[in-house]
Amino acid sequence: MIAQHAFPVEPWTVREAALDLSLLAPAESLFALSNGHIGFRGNLDEGEPHGLPGTYLNSFYEERPLPYAEAGYGYPEVGQTVVNVTDGKIVRLFVDDEPFDVRYGRLLAHERVLDLRAGTLVRTADWVSPAGKRVRVRSTRLVSFVQRAVAAVEFTVEAVDDEVRVTLQSELVANEALPQQSADPRVSAVLKAPLVSVDHDCGRAGATLVHRTRASGLQMAAGMENHVEAPGRVDVETHDADDWARTTVVCVLGAGEQVRLQKYLAYGWSGLRSHPALRDQVAGALSGARFTGFEGLLREQREYLEEFWDAADVQVDGDAEVQQAVRFGLFHVLQAGARAEQRGIPAKGLTGPGYDGHIFWDTEAYVLPVLTYTAPEAAADALRWRASTLDQARSRAAELRLAGAAFPWRTIRGEESSGYWPAGTAAFHVNGDIAAAVERYRIATGETTLETDGGLAVLVETARMWRSLGHHDTAGRWHVAGVTGPDEYTAVVADNVFTNLVAAQNLRVAAEACHRHPDLARSLGVDLEETAAWRDAADAVHVPYDEDLRVHQQCEGFTRRPEWDFEANPQYPLLLHSPYFDLYRKQVVKQADLQMALFWFADRFSDEDKARAVDYYERRTVRDSSLSAAVQAVTAAEVGHLELAHDYVYEAASVDLRDLHHNTGDGLHIASLAGTWLALVNGFGGMRDVGGSLVFRPRLPSGISRLRFSVRWRGTKLTVDVRPEQVEYSVRDHDTAVEFKHGDETLHLRAGQSVTRPVSVPEPLLPRPVQPPGRAPLHRGGDH
Amino acid sequence: MIAQHAFPVEPWTVREAALDLSLLAPAESLFALSNGHIGFRGNLDEGEPHGLPGTYLNSFYEERPLPYAEAGYGYPEVGQTVVNVTDGKIVRLFVDDEPFDVRYGRLLAHERVLDLRAGTLVRTADWVSPAGKRVRVRSTRLVSFVQRAVAAVEFTVEAVDDEVRVTLQSELVANEALPQQSADPRVSAVLKAPLVSVDHDCGRAGATLVHRTRASGLQMAAGMENHVEAPGRVDVETHDADDWARTTVVCVLGAGEQVRLQKYLAYGWSGLRSHPALRDQVAGALSGARFTGFEGLLREQREYLEEFWDAADVQVDGDAEVQQAVRFGLFHVLQAGARAEQRGIPAKGLTGPGYDGHIFWDTEAYVLPVLTYTAPEAAADALRWRASTLDQARSRAAELRLAGAAFPWRTIRGEESSGYWPAGTAAFHVNGDIAAAVERYRIATGETTLETDGGLAVLVETARMWRSLGHHDTAGRWHVAGVTGPDEYTAVVADNVFTNLVAAQNLRVAAEACHRHPDLARSLGVDLEETAAWRDAADAVHVPYDEDLRVHQQCEGFTRRPEWDFEANPQYPLLLHSPYFDLYRKQVVKQADLQMALFWFADRFSDEDKARAVDYYERRTVRDSSLSAAVQAVTAAEVGHLELAHDYVYEAASVDLRDLHHNTGDGLHIASLAGTWLALVNGFGGMRDVGGSLVFRPRLPSGISRLRFSVRWRGTKLTVDVRPEQVEYSVRDHDTAVEFKHGDETLHLRAGQSVTRPVSVPEPLLPRPVQPPGRAPLHRGGDH
Repeated sequence: MIAQHAFPVEPWTVREAALDLSLLAPAESLFALSNGHIGFRGNLDEGEPHGLPGTYLNSFYEERPLPYAEAGYGYPEVGQTVVNVTDGKIVRLFVDDEPFDVRYGRLLAHERVLDLRAGTLVRTADWVSPAGKRVRVRSTRLVSFVQRAVAAVEFTVEAVDDEVRVTLQSELVANEALPQQSADPRVSAVLKAPLVSVDHDCGRAGATLVHRTRASGLQMAAGMENHVEAPGRVDVETHDADDWARTTVVCVLGAGEQVRLQKYLAYGWSGLRSHPALRDQVAGALSGARFTGFEGLLREQREYLEEFWDAADVQVDGDAEVQQAVRFGLFHVLQAGARAEQRGIPAKGLTGPGYDGHIFWDTEAYVLPVLTYTAPEAAADALRWRASTLDQARSRAAELRLAGAAFPWRTIRGEESSGYWPAGTAAFHVNGDIAAAVERYRIATGETTLETDGGLAVLVETARMWRSLGHHDTAGRWHVAGVTGPDEYTAVVADNVFTNLVAAQNLRVAAEACHRHPDLARSLGVDLEETAAWRDAADAVHVPYDEDLRVHQQCEGFTRRPEWDFEANPQYPLLLHSPYFDLYRKQVVKQADLQMALFWFADRFSDEDKARAVDYYERRTVRDSSLSAAVQAVTAAEVGHLELAHDYVYEAASVDLRDLHHNTGDGLHIASLAGTWLALVNGFGGMRDVGGSLVFRPRLPSGISRLRFSVRWRGTKLTVDVRPEQVEYSVRDHDTAVEFKHGDETLHLRAGQSVTRPVSVPEPLLPRPVQPPGRAPLHRGGDH
Repeated sequence: MIAQHAFPVEPWTVREAALDLSLLAPAESLFALSNGHIGFRGNLDEGEPHGLPGTYLNSFYEERPLPYAEAGYGYPEVGQTVVNVTDGKIVRLFVDDEPFDVRYGRLLAHERVLDLRAGTLVRTADWVSPAGKRVRVRSTRLVSFVQRAVAAVEFTVEAVDDEVRVTLQSELVANEALPQQSADPRVSAVLKAPLVSVDHDCGRAGATLVHRTRASGLQMAAGMENHVEAPGRVDVETHDADDWARTTVVCVLGAGEQVRLQKYLAYGWSGLRSHPALRDQVAGALSGARFTGFEGLLREQREYLEEFWDAADVQVDGDAEVQQAVRFGLFHVLQAGARAEQRGIPAKGLTGPGYDGHIFWDTEAYVLPVLTYTAPEAAADALRWRASTLDQARSRAAELRLAGAAFPWRTIRGEESSGYWPAGTAAFHVNGDIAAAVERYRIATGETTLETDGGLAVLVETARMWRSLGHHDTAGRWHVAGVTGPDEYTAVVADNVFTNLVAAQNLRVAAEACHRHPDLARSLGVDLEETAAWRDAADAVHVPYDEDLRVHQQCEGFTRRPEWDFEANPQYPLLLHSPYFDLYRKQVVKQADLQMALFWFADRFSDEDKARAVDYYERRTVRDSSLSAAVQAVTAAEVGHLELAHDYVYEAASVDLRDLHHNTGDGLHIASLAGTWLALVNGFGGMRDVGGSLVFRPRLPSGISRLRFSVRWRGTKLTVDVRPEQVEYSVRDHDTAVEFKHGDETLHLRAGQSVTRPVSVPEPLLPRPVQPPGRAPLHRGGDH
């Protein structure tokens, strides 16, 4: 865990005031820059020391064997793993003949600042070499949101007291040595040097390296071009080899003089295009970047972000940490998805190799809800990527003996890469989550292009999958058996409520979409009998309820299972200390599951049922997943436990900034970062989009004096400004009209209008629930 | 599958009348010789061609990594695999300078005979070399039941027409090349050359090789001594190296002359003893064998078997195939267990490397019931082996966060080696099966030494495990959740009836045993509160029942699960064509599970419930396990479907002789072979030992005119001779008295007495059930 003081709380920056070598890896993740296409971990310019070097290209992966002690039908044999591609971030510095390395000499000052409005990572170092020569180093790094293939570094060195000879080595390095990533020697072998040289060339101040992966057959090119400004004589030359290229700059600086290196980087990859085409693509991107210039890239970046923040910013008064965290989270959500452009958004974005760089359900369930209301084009792009993997999903369904399409639990390119089916293949809800994201996008934006452009096929094929997965009983109720819901401590069950409800919704929206697009539906083979069968199943969906306890069952029989002994199992996460068989059979919940259903399907549960369910499941939920706190914040807020909700918001917000799960070093938890937005907007903003209309029931905890956010709804940006006693809704001048609800009251606003309504905070029906021993969230709220 | 004519039906032999190279591997398994300590597959003397060379020593294994695509707490990391040890069976022959190889020259005749009364494999070949020289070859091979460390081969060659120079190479070969056994290169690497040379030495006509395993740290020695009789001059010399030793015999035979080689073999292994000790142990065994001589070994072998058959033979008139098969099965059960002597009895015996040579629940549930009534010392030895692994089982329970001991699902030495927990660790019933075997032994033999010699500790520790695994509900019923019963197509369920009933029995017999041995119980920390808690749970055990369908549920909710679509899934075994998730959630049964409960706990079910349950589960059971048919035979016979029972007896009997599962080549299905006895004795003999008394309710199908078998009951051998209309019970002169029941009538017989009673065949309550399409057993009975 990162101590609270490591990063001072500032509204628009994340600042590391001093270098702590023990926090290198998490800091590299926090300071990662990305545009959704290229990802740079926040490694030091000089390459070493490092926690984990990381440069990624979205969807550029290698295949690796998935081993099984005992094989089984339908087990994926080949996994997909993100690879660390050619590192273009490296600028090494020699002061006279000593390498700049923070572990040697004296580091008088060191600061790194991630600027959420500038979109840059700025580093300054004041260093005295072992020989006593003092230099000031400053680097500014960006991965361009505007020029998708481009990144850039400006690196300046100033001689402080004495004349020094400065040598800069600006590099491209492929196949960097990494810490061992797997105990399986075959996997380690695959990942040890994943790139095979295809071509390399260099000019005076730049070079290009072209590589391919051994098994997955993908090619990539990385190019650099260096521009140097220095007083007096400067020598520049470049050398290249299979796995590296180096532009060397040598000059002499008098006291107070500085050398400035501007390094333009471009990346491209393809599974189809030839290596000359890739090489030229990278050269073209470099030309564009030089044409724009470093200052131009900085300006573009800031403008891009201004527009984003204008639409997406969330203002939180009263809790400066949450204020910082929600912006930090939105920034990284944007970085993960902004220019993914029909590639997926991995669970870690492009910030680290965690989870093998895979995309899970959290993209559709956590990240896209945020993007849909703040950067809808990015959401549409991510859904177009899913649609582009429909053929793989169809094949998987056929392999599983199901109709339609079964999307993978984890993947990079679309093939199932999960090596443990009870927490992989069995988690069919991912299909309903995808369908929900398609429908949410349509409802929120009013756009139908996504639906006709692949979305309908996704809805139809997932509906078919559900219809073949579920079954009716003799009483006509529709069930889904043998699946795993969001809670991975309760696997392979019947009638998981969340799964059943996303399945029913999937069936219903697929039928409706087919009726909206009859010709397209016909071309997919859908007839009225099929849509009628979908609606019938959806209407008959079974939702298990314990009549004695008067509480919904997360799945059939859940409330009758043996209780987990929390006192006897004090070590978390539980999965590292207890066998699955015991976790699975008892009432212990890894992460919000029934509470996820309460959130997503708010209109299917009465207030009393919600209050009882929150009370019941809070006591049994251990939050061993970073996905949990945000949803618990939303449901706690809904049932009136506002201080508890505030605690959960803080936990969701802190997952990476404080490294709560001790694995931020492997990459950020993008879904949890998105969850901070969900927790604030859906929780304290009380926003729901159930049933096609936008509803707010805002309410603030005592520790937050103002919450201001905007959402895009059918092309209009609606700003919601919540204070303890009242809420103001407003639409800007240049927007169009919008209809929404404040509680049960329907409101209409035209351009430039605003309206204020009182905030009514409900009295909770039940006292604040307790969590399992030791698993209460960090206290933030004021009521204890 | 092996065609019906491949092995002619003979009562006391299995004869292969001609060599079919496509059946080499299954024939090697069928013709395997073993005494439970040493196992020789039926490889040809000359080593090639072969299906799979195989020489095994009980419990001599190597460790291998168990890989997982996604790791989990408590997953075993190290597996145990039986290794092919030094092969002493090999005798190569050169006729003039051409090697005797059945693939070359002309094979005029070739016959192999496994003689079930002699305990030998006799092979004769009449061969003409490519150069036209004709020889008659005869080999007689035995693995001694009497001299546990000894095997022997007599090999004779006769020149038929011309003078020939004959060269014999009698060999020991370590690290024979084997077909690849695993797709995992690490596993293949481990198994490729598992033996490391420690020492070797030779004399004029014999040699010894000492090896050790790399990882498991076991040492073994194999020794041979060759005795030659030939007319005229004969040269004998021996050479040795790390991995081989060879005694070469050269002589010239005139027409009609023969050379005779008698090869004595001895094996020993230890995890503790030094290599000189092992070497000397083998030398000692060789000395004993030579002292006895080959004829002496043959005589001892026949005498040993005479005694066995006198006690164990089952006579079946009217069905010659079943007659042959039940004797073949009893012979291999004896071979697997006779001299195991506190080592386990693997699922394949020592006949092949299938299942890695592991021991499963079928030892206690299928093999020991046969041995308990026919060779009780062997049953006691196998249970003493289990008791010797109690420490590993205690460690495993602790790792699983359970009390007491959890025996492994599959193992060689006692450590869990299962790499898939839903069908491994979750199958806790193995503990109850072990406890049942301990209790069965006590009841059937009247012996209490096993109980005091480790048995009580097994009962106590397994009872403790069950008590911590199960739980009471609010109504006071006792449940076991999250476990897998015998049916591996229905995993990780609540209240599997078979599991619940073996658990309850385990708890009850543990309590009773503690009361019989209060001091010993106290030394194990048992007090009256603990035994009371066991009895309480046992008495409160929940047995789920579907009140609407009036049928027992294999597990909670089973009868409400979706039905399996048998028509849409016509390929078997289903697990190779359907994912676990789909098999697990539907009403499809791999193997007898509820029917196993009907058999073992016959007194807990009414006749009507039995009839309904057989009817219900027959329709859903696909018999993808070789363990199923025997139990289905027993329950079909019980509910009056005698012809169906006969079909199942035939299937159980044919599993290996006809290679029904296409994997006899990997080793025999010892439990299914034992099952033939169970099917006849418990099925048509109607024998049950529930509640401490021995009951018979005999009944014959139309195709069997007489069934005669003997069982040992508390030291007395009771012979039961069933005919269609009557049954005769008799006790021999030199036996003591016995009490048993014929139906509800209690009978007493003293030495030399017999009594005849009429057989009453019940009318079935329901019509003969149908099996899933294509899964009816081969028809044997006469009613359709």
